[in-house]
Parts: sequence; structure tokens; C-alpha cells
Amino acid sequence: MQQKIHFECDYTEGAHPKILKRFMETNMEQTVGYGEDPYCQKAAELIRGLCKKGEAAVHFLVGGTQANLTVISALLRPHQAAVCVETGHINVHETGAIEAVGHKVISVSGKNGKLTAEDVERVYRLHWEDATHEHMPQPKLVYISNPTEIGTIYTKAELEALRAVCDRCGLYLFLDGARLGYGLAAEDNDLDLESIAANCDVFYIGGTKMGALFGEAVVICNPELQEDFRYLIKQKGGMLAKGRLLGIQFLELLQDGLYFDLGEHAVKLAQKLREGLLNAGYKMQDSTTNQQFVIVSDEELKKIEEKYCVSYIERIGEDQNVIRICTSWATTEENVEQFLRDAEQIKKAL
Amino acid sequence: MQQKIHFECDYTEGAHPKILKRFMETNMEQTVGYGEDPYCQKAAELIRGLCKKGEAAVHFLVGGTQANLTVISALLRPHQAAVCVETGHINVHETGAIEAVGHKVISVSGKNGKLTAEDVERVYRLHWEDATHEHMPQPKLVYISNPTEIGTIYTKAELEALRAVCDRCGLYLFLDGARLGYGLAAEDNDLDLESIAANCDVFYIGGTKMGALFGEAVVICNPELQEDFRYLIKQKGGMLAKGRLLGIQFLELLQDGLYFDLGEHAVKLAQKLREGLLNAGYKMQDSTTNQQFVIVSDEELKKIEEKYCVSYIERIGEDQNVIRICTSWATTEENVEQFLRDAEQIKKAL
Amino acid sequence: MQQKIHFECDYTEGAHPKILKRFMETNMEQTVGYGEDPYCQKAAELIRGLCKKGEAAVHFLVGGTQANLTVISALLRPHQAAVCVETGHINVHETGAIEAVGHKVISVSGKNGKLTAEDVERVYRLHWEDATHEHMPQPKLVYISNPTEIGTIYTKAELEALRAVCDRCGLYLFLDGARLGYGLAAEDNDLDLESIAANCDVFYIGGTKMGALFGEAVVICNPELQEDFRYLIKQKGGMLAKGRLLGIQFLELLQDGLYFDLGEHAVKLAQKLREGLLNAGYKMQDSTTNQQFVIVSDEELKKIEEKYCVSYIERIGEDQNVIRICTSWATTEENVEQFLRDAEQIKKAL
Amino acid sequence: MQQKIHFECDYTEGAHPKILKRFMETNMEQTVGYGEDPYCQKAAELIRGLCKKGEAAVHFLVGGTQANLTVISALLRPHQAAVCVETGHINVHETGAIEAVGHKVISVSGKNGKLTAEDVERVYRLHWEDATHEHMPQPKLVYISNPTEIGTIYTKAELEALRAVCDRCGLYLFLDGARLGYGLAAEDNDLDLESIAANCDVFYIGGTKMGALFGEAVVICNPELQEDFRYLIKQKGGMLAKGRLLGIQFLELLQDGLYFDLGEHAVKLAQKLREGLLNAGYKMQDSTTNQQFVIVSDEELKKIEEKYCVSYIERIGEDQNVIRICTSWATTEENVEQFLRDAEQIKKAL
Repeated sequence: MQQKIHFECDYTEGAHPKILKRFMETNMEQTVGYGEDPYCQKAAELIRGLCKKGEAAVHFLVGGTQANLTVISALLRPHQAAVCVETGHINVHETGAIEAVGHKVISVSGKNGKLTAEDVERVYRLHWEDATHEHMPQPKLVYISNPTEIGTIYTKAELEALRAVCDRCGLYLFLDGARLGYGLAAEDNDLDLESIAANCDVFYIGGTKMGALFGEAVVICNPELQEDFRYLIKQKGGMLAKGRLLGIQFLELLQDGLYFDLGEHAVKLAQKLREGLLNAGYKMQDSTTNQQFVIVSDEELKKIEEKYCVSYIERIGEDQNVIRICTSWATTEENVEQFLRDAEQIKKAL
Repeated sequence: MQQKIHFECDYTEGAHPKILKRFMETNMEQTVGYGEDPYCQKAAELIRGLCKKGEAAVHFLVGGTQANLTVISALLRPHQAAVCVETGHINVHETGAIEAVGHKVISVSGKNGKLTAEDVERVYRLHWEDATHEHMPQPKLVYISNPTEIGTIYTKAELEALRAVCDRCGLYLFLDGARLGYGLAAEDNDLDLESIAANCDVFYIGGTKMGALFGEAVVICNPELQEDFRYLIKQKGGMLAKGRLLGIQFLELLQDGLYFDLGEHAVKLAQKLREGLLNAGYKMQDSTTNQQFVIVSDEELKKIEEKYCVSYIERIGEDQNVIRICTSWATTEENVEQFLRDAEQIKKAL
Repeated sequence: MQQKIHFECDYTEGAHPKILKRFMETNMEQTVGYGEDPYCQKAAELIRGLCKKGEAAVHFLVGGTQANLTVISALLRPHQAAVCVETGHINVHETGAIEAVGHKVISVSGKNGKLTAEDVERVYRLHWEDATHEHMPQPKLVYISNPTEIGTIYTKAELEALRAVCDRCGLYLFLDGARLGYGLAAEDNDLDLESIAANCDVFYIGGTKMGALFGEAVVICNPELQEDFRYLIKQKGGMLAKGRLLGIQFLELLQDGLYFDLGEHAVKLAQKLREGLLNAGYKMQDSTTNQQFVIVSDEELKKIEEKYCVSYIERIGEDQNVIRICTSWATTEENVEQFLRDAEQIKKAL
Repeated sequence: MQQKIHFECDYTEGAHPKILKRFMETNMEQTVGYGEDPYCQKAAELIRGLCKKGEAAVHFLVGGTQANLTVISALLRPHQAAVCVETGHINVHETGAIEAVGHKVISVSGKNGKLTAEDVERVYRLHWEDATHEHMPQPKLVYISNPTEIGTIYTKAELEALRAVCDRCGLYLFLDGARLGYGLAAEDNDLDLESIAANCDVFYIGGTKMGALFGEAVVICNPELQEDFRYLIKQKGGMLAKGRLLGIQFLELLQDGLYFDLGEHAVKLAQKLREGLLNAGYKMQDSTTNQQFVIVSDEELKKIEEKYCVSYIERIGEDQNVIRICTSWATTEENVEQFLRDAEQIKKAL
């Protein structure tokens, strides 16, 4: 049986070869464990520099759900809640990890997968203007993903507006950057690590989907939220014994800009896919990043799935479906072109 | 300053005099604690009889939030979730009590404050048909309130439909009966304790809002869900040392039908209020129970609040508001008539 | 069958008659719910005055386990732990309520049921001097009971020493006063509400075991720990709808010193029991409060249990047992004398 | 500055070269994520075969704390507790991870770091014979580590005795095998994967300390405990996106016996260390595995630490200390010999 080509997500391959090479070179070195080794220290220092945030605390975790639940557990008191859009990862795809550490996720519909400052203000007012607010979870943390779960990105103005409303309302702003590099590479992006660090209390730079074997670099910009974070990492099962593996990976990704190059590679191919599919007559949701959402009929889907793995998102209308295709740091131009040729043929044939 | 008349809820007075009298009579008796006394045993037996459910386990808890969180914590594994309507008490008015014991509350819009069998089926399918269902909380328990938080009631047919879908899908059905007596007294009601017990895995008979000082009688109909429930009560802080206070109250309420009489009293007065207000020209949401939801202008609200306490629910449209007024076992005909006279005058004056 | 006389605990009767009388008098008054009524406000003010602690926040909860879990949940971050003696109520008799809200209870053996300042210092050092302290729960709160679970009491000097070590180590001091009135009435007691409030961050005045139907008055002396406490009460299921029942009870108990009189009554009878039993030849553990721990042989125990309910504590040696007998606000001199006569006879007969 | 030689733990290096080599070879393959790839499937099948347990479910997690909290959370209801020895990893070195998922850890002193069947029986009886057992956490799971945290191992007879008591008492037996390979290589060991699987409900084969970069293979032998385990992994943040990394590592370790060879290598060097140190006049705790506990004076410790990293365990007596030195799959004979030469000299010099 022929192997299908995977476009369903951005973590189907291993790691960028530079990372494995570095693992080989450092393999027999002895270091202390649990993220207190020189590699993690250097990587943290590097990230503080890139963020121009000397007082930031940087911690390396293995995965995104772990990062989300550890950060939120560290920041909130038991009666406090996180606010996010309905499609937010913590709201739909983490098996209730946030609730399992005790906190309600208050979801709002948002716009294009994004939370607006008005959404936040509304949730805040709804809570505090109610005479019985003590009977409701208290909104305290704003969770956003950039890029979002549907491939859109926040502008600098939008992020600043969220910061402003958080300041007015005494809320924390937490940005899930599991796919951050793909957002930064979008042609309509005007954010960078510095502006993100300037506006968020906490955010993370995703490695798993960006060429690392695994790893998310959590940056706690707000010094008031840094205390005892390592206890939380350990308690939640996120403290990697051979922590240096995380430091080494982020050093490789960030010290010479590899992270940003990989982001650009994926986004360039995603846009090639996008244009090709639009030209072929497919309808698509807006996205300038590496996730592309295509509307296909049942018939088209069946044909596509003969050769490709894609993510099924949802059914719309009578016989139409939304599917997601992703490029990544590892996607080849060749596979993209083949997909486009096949998609074009499928469209024509029907 | 003149005392305002309270219509904002159904727990502004103490207890039905019979209960206090019985407390006096039994006060110096010595009994064992924690709900293992003869009064609790008799009350439990009485309830099993009324429900025609000999194998049911009956436990007495102090309040509704406590009952909800204890039951749900006892029934679900960590990855499982409760399904309820958006207006459901556990979803909006318990400060995240369910999330605090680790479970997500999956809310759906419902219809007239009620969950339909179709809603449940849809949530179930959405979960299990998703290839990555392990990344989402697993719906396992259906939570409904009867009467609902907006005063509507379930019909027997609706309850049976919910039971049927729960059976098909392997879900538990849990009915919050904090105001059960007011639902059973509604003129369009066709449920009784027996049919409720026949269809629910767990439900409770609310005392706090029905003439008791406090207390909810939790009935676990499904024998498979009864094991070790007393541990949960103790752990969650709900095990009353002088547990007999609960047994005594439910005996007084249920042994001669007082509970049902009190329900009828309140509902009769609520319908009198309803008709009077409609006649006076007010618009009202549908409700055949003791909670009535009236639409009033800002001006009208201001006038009403000069003499009465009411619950503010929400703003609708430009200058209209929904308020809630409740009758209870303790409401006097006199207060109802006075309210109606004032409301009529306010309407006329504008 | 003849009713046995209960000495097994201090909550076998109802409430002091003054309380029931006041319930009757106020029964049909209408008040707002959830502890925001005038009775609770007056009772809180009264307690602040008795404690000479104008800035204290006072909250009324229904029971002791509820008070313990709510306070500890409100004060600690997820990685922090409570320190207490092995016999501490939270360590052994609350079905893991503290663990269920996420916190480890670090137990030390203590001395006479009491935690010493040295114990606390040792636990603190053991934690912070360990290079891998992040791998262990962080001690942050010291939990003591006064009187202790074995009837002993803290002296003012001991309490001040605990305060001092807590100050040095940045720990909170929390005193469980479920039986506080019986401690204050001990002849060797030199504490009062004022000195307790001056030394503790949080403590509570127990009502359930001291003549109330139920109720514990939580006093949060440290203003930094007061924020949002009502959310926690609601979330943990401890917010009584008819909250005034708690305010009324504490007013009755505290406004004319009834609370202290009841304590003295019980302790006087306990000491009478103690002396009588010692004279009759029984061995007893030291206790100057209302709980008395008697050592009895199997044979003696069997005889005693024919007419009395007592608490079985533990087996010691070959055929000896420790039992607990309690007096309370409701114990009669007559019952005490009868018990002594019987105990004397039993001893003689063997 | 000269690099110190690390003996403080068994995870100071990376992975066995075969693993990295295999990562390189498979790096650009595309597979599905989250542990559902062919490598994980093959590794699971291999483990089922080695355990002669065809019905076992095998899941791959990243680390030990994660494995412990996920398993225990999956197996216990909220009021149930784990029983372990005082030195047990879940009791002292996981920052309260088990309590953070809601469960008390009941610790007993044990013998040589091991839990005996008598210990378990005693805890069980203590609970169930108490009239108020509902006021205490219910013991339900027995947690043991093999080798233990102090280097000792269970015999087959001991494990079978634990199984028998668990069967009698309705308890689950869970074995933490973080260092399993070092236990199996001990000269006095009579266990193997088959006998472990035959006696435990759940256990895991540790990879992190045995030559993997990371990874623990959880084997759920008892089919009744297998349901929905993947939900728990996801919720607790333990589901690795590129799950195949775990499958690949366990395939390399287990398919040709490498795992057992590495265990033997470490244990052989540990015994060499042990004999050398004993000959040099050091006192040592009993251990036949890769962790060796040496008693050293303050002076000796200072000298040793000039060139070596060791784990400080505790102070004993006036000026004596217990330190831990570990060998591992990666330890060189050369380093062991150098350490022995230095230790001998230090002893002589004093």
C-alpha cells in the first residue's frame, strides 16, 4: 500500500536536522537535570534578549497543553476563570485540562477566531455589574492564541487594545504561541517577539510545531507572576529530567534565526497552496498562515483522502465540508505541487 | 425607613412553623451525628416510599451547590463532563463549583430553559464522531433543573425522552430539584416523585426554597452510583454534624403532604401575580411556577424598587429590563395584592 | 429498649434554647440571603469587637470541614502545603478534604497533640535547605486546633512562639477553633479571643459543638488574606441561602457571654468526670477541657457500653483501650453522676 | 575550571547512541501524532509479548511524575487514597502531584524502603474497622517502586504477597519502575517483566533513567482499568504530539535486549563502587542496584565534592552525612576507578 502524504497537521515529521545533529554532539556530556543546565540558561538569556525583556523568566516545557495548564494554574486563584474564544484550544481540544486544575473557561464567540478588546470588556462588565458576582467565576485571565486555531493572526493594534483592556480591568494577558513562528511569517503580520513581550503577561514560543522534536518556551514577562513557577512545572508533571534537551533545541532554533526561516518556508508554501486551490475553484477561509481551511464536497473529500491525510473540521450545509491542510517547516515544494495538481484534477472531474 | 417587601427570591423567611416546633420538641434528645440518626433513617424510608423506589439511597445535604458538586464529583471520572443548558445553575451561578472539582460543564442553548433529547444527542455525536475525541472532555452526565432557572417545567414526555437518549448513549441523568415542589404544583405539570425517580439516575428534592431552614434530599435511584457516597459528602464539607436537623425537616415536609401544599400555595399566588401584571399591561415570560419574569422599563423598575426587592435579570433592548419576582411557601396574599395595586398604578402613571 | 446516654461527642443534642427561641421570633422576617443580612453584619461587628480587631473580616460557615477546606483553598497556591500534627483533624478525619482541593498536609508528630514552634521551624528548614525544594510541596500554612483533638490546649506563650516562627518563615497561622469555647474555659487557659486574633492570620469560633445548631465563625485577621473570600465560600458549597441563621446564632451565643458560660459548664462537668474516674482507679490522658480520654480494659469497655455511647479511639497494649467521653453545653450533672457511679462499680466488680 | 564528574543521578547524559541513530534514520518520515503511529504500536506489541500479557494496554508517557499522577488519577475515585512508604517518590519528591489531582498519599514507614503485605493489611484494617471510616480517605491503591528510592528491590515472594493482600482487600497494585532495568539486573533479583505483569494492575518500564532521552512505558495489565486512559494522558498534559519518539525509543531499548544490557552495565559498576568503598573503610546502606548510599563525614564530603557531583540525602548523627552516588547506562569504568582512587585517598588522609 502506498504511503499517504500528510497535510493534516504540522507535527508529522521529527525535528530540523540541526537539532538532531546537536543532540549527537552533546549526547555524552554530563549536565545537571531539570532545566538548570547551561543550555537552558543560555537559551533563556537568548530569549530575554530577543524579547528585549531583561526581567522575563523563561521556562521550557514539553508541550502546549502542559504549558497552558501550568501557566493558568500558576496565575489564578481557585475562583478565577480564563476568558477565550469558543474555538480556543483550551476550550475545545485539551480534554478539560484547565477545568481539571479547577478553573472555568469562559468562552465568547469572538471574530475570525480572535478575541476583541470589546469581548473582554463585556465579559468583565457582565461579571462585576452583577449584584451577585460572587456566585459566578471571576474573569481574571485572557487567553489568546497567535496564530489562532483557524489560522488568523492578531495585529499589533489588536494586541495593544487587549493589553489596554487588561490593564483597565486588572486581568492577565496570556498568549499561546504554539504556532507563533508561522504567525510572525505571515505577510500581514506586524508583531514580533518584542511587541508580544511588551504586551503580554505571559506567552510562549512554540517549538513542537516549528521544527523541534518537542518543546515550548514559556516567557513570564510580568515579574509579579514569576514566583515559584518551577514548583508548578514539577507538580503538573512537566519538568523534563534531561531538561537540556529543551535548551539545546531552542538555542538551535533561535540563535541564528532558524525559527523564523522555518516559519517563512511553511507560510510561503501555504500561500502557494492557497492560491493554487483558489485558482482551481475551491472556496477557502481567510488565513495568511500555515493552516489553510478548504471547503470541499463529499465527493472531493473522498478523492483527496485517497492520497492525502487532511484534518476534518466540520460539516457545513448539505454536502460541504471544511478540511484543514497544514504546511510546516518540513513540507516539501514537491508535495505541495502534487497536491495542487491532484486537487485541480478532482475539481475538473466533477 | 420603611422595610421593603421582598419578592426577589424564595428564601427570605425562615422555616415553616411546624419545622421549628419540631426542632423545639426534639431539641434535647440525644442522637448519633452525621445523618445516621433515626430521623434521617425515617425520612429516607419515607422518600423511598413516595418515589416507589425501594432500592434508592437517600442522603440529606445542606444546600444546592453542595448537592450539585458532590453528586457530580461522585459520578464522573476526571475526563468526563456535564451537559446542561446555558442558563443552568451549575453553568452560571455556582462560582465554577463543578470546574473546581475538575469537570467541564458543556453548555448548549436549549429551549425555554430546557435541555432537549436532541441537544443531548447532538453533544454526544459531536464528541464521539470526532476522530480526536480523546482531546475533548467526554460528555457523561446530563444536568437538568426542574423547574428550570427561568420557571419552566419538563413534561413527563420530555423527561422520558431524555432518559431514552441517556440510555442509548450511556449517560447519567441528574435532576436538580431545588424548587421541585413549585414545579410539581404547576397546572401544566404531569410529573410526580415516582415518575421522576423512574427516569433519573439521581435527583434531589429541594427543601431550602420550600419551607425548610435548609436542606436538599438527594435520591440516588441507580444502585450502581450509590457506592461510597457518604465519603464524598464528608470530603466536600457537606456532612452536617447534627444531621438529624435534616431528617426532621424532611419528615415534617413530606409525611403529611405539607411540601406539596406549600408548593401549591406559592404557585397559586404566583399565577395571581402573573394574571394581575398581564392585565395591568406588563409583558411577561412564560412560567407556570413560582418564579415570574416581568419586562419593565427603567422608569417602572425605579418605581417598583422604591417599595419592593426584586431580582434584576438582564437588560433587553433600549430601556427595557427583565426582572424576576418570586413567591414562596411564605408569601402572603396581602403582599401580592399590594404589589399588584402598586404595579397597576405605576403602569397607569407612565 | 432503654435509650443509652450519649457521651461520645459534643453534638448529640440540638441547640441552646435561646437560639431556637430567637429563630421563632425572627422566623417570618424577610431578609436578603447569603450572609449579607443585618444579623450577620451585627454578629460580625460583635466578633470584631470581642477580638479587638477592627480590620478583621468575619464569615459564617456551616461546619468545620467546610471551614477548613475553604480557608486553606483561599490561602494557598497549588504547590503549597499545610503543616499540622499527625492527630490534626485535617490530617485524619476529613476524608482528604484538603487534598481534594489540591494541597498536601505535611504531618509531624508534635507533642501532646500540639505543634511546637520547633516543629514548624524544622519542616521549614527541611524544605528550603534541600537543593531540590521545588520537587517538594512548599510548607506555607500552619494549622493548629485549640483545644486539640486530644483535649489539650495551647498556652499564650506557645501561640506567640508559633506566630514568631510563622513571621520569620513567611507562613500563615490558622487556628481551628471547633471547640474553642471549651479551651477558653480550661483552668490552665491563658488565651482569649483578643490574643488569638492578635496571633493568628485566620481562626474560627466553633458554634456546632458549643450550643449552636451548626455554624463556625471564620475570622480573617490578616487583611491581605481577605480578598474574594465569599467567592470561595460559594464555590465550595458553603454559602447558606438563609445566611441569617448563622448570624442569629452567633449573636445569641456571643452578645451576653452565653458562649463562655456554656464552655465553663461543660468543662466543669468534664473535670468532675475526670476526678471521679481517677478516684475510681481509671488511668486517663491529660486534658483540662471537655474531652476526656480514659483507658479501659475490654471487660470494662463492654460494661460501659451497655448503658453509654462513647468514642472508641484505639487499642493499646494487650487488652487495654482508649475511649473518649465528652461533655458539652447540654450535659447534665445527673448523667455525669450516674456515669461515675457505674464506672466505679465496674471497676470494683472486676 | 575543570568540569566535575557527575554521580548524583542517572540522567546526566543524553540517550544511548542507537536511539539517536534511529531518530536520524526516521526523522523525515511522516506519521500520525499522539502515540497512534506504527512505532508506538509495535513497541506496545513488543512489550505485551515480553510481559506475556496479551490483554495489557501499553501507553507511552514522557516522565515519571506524569506517569504517576496520570495513572493514579485514572484509577481512583475522589475519596480514595494511595498507600506508600514514607520514602516513596509520590510522597516526597513530586511537589504534591498526587494531592494536586485530589488524592491523599497515606504513608507508612515500611522496611528497607519497601512496603510489606502486613503494612498494607494494617492500613486497610485501620480504615475499615473504624466506625467512622467515611471520615477518612479510603485506601484503594498500593504504590511501590522497584527498585525503591533507596536502591533496594522486591523479591518475587514479596510482590506476590502484596498481590495477595490487594486481592483480599480489593486494592490496586501499582509499581513505579522508573529504574526498573537496574532492579532486574541486581544479583539478588528474581523478578522479570512477566512476573511483574502477572502481579501488578499497572506498572511502568522506565526509560528516562535507562538510556532513553525520556519516556516511561505504562503497562495497564488489568483490563478493567484500561478504559479511556488516553483522555487522562491528554488532560494531564502528557500526550506527546510526536508520540512516535517514544515508540522508537522503546523499540530500540527492548527489541534486542539493550535495556537489560544497560541495566547490567550500571549495576556491575555500582557494585564495583560499593566494594571499593567498603574496602576503603566507608560505611554504606544496603543496595544491590545502581544507587549507592555512602556515609561520609563533613570533611570527606567536602573533599569529594571538589571533583564530583553527588546527591546529598541527609545528616545523621553529629557530623556524618548520607550521600547518594549513581551509576547509569552511561557511566564509564574509568570514572568509577578514578572515584574509588580519590575516595580511598580521602579516607586515608583523614
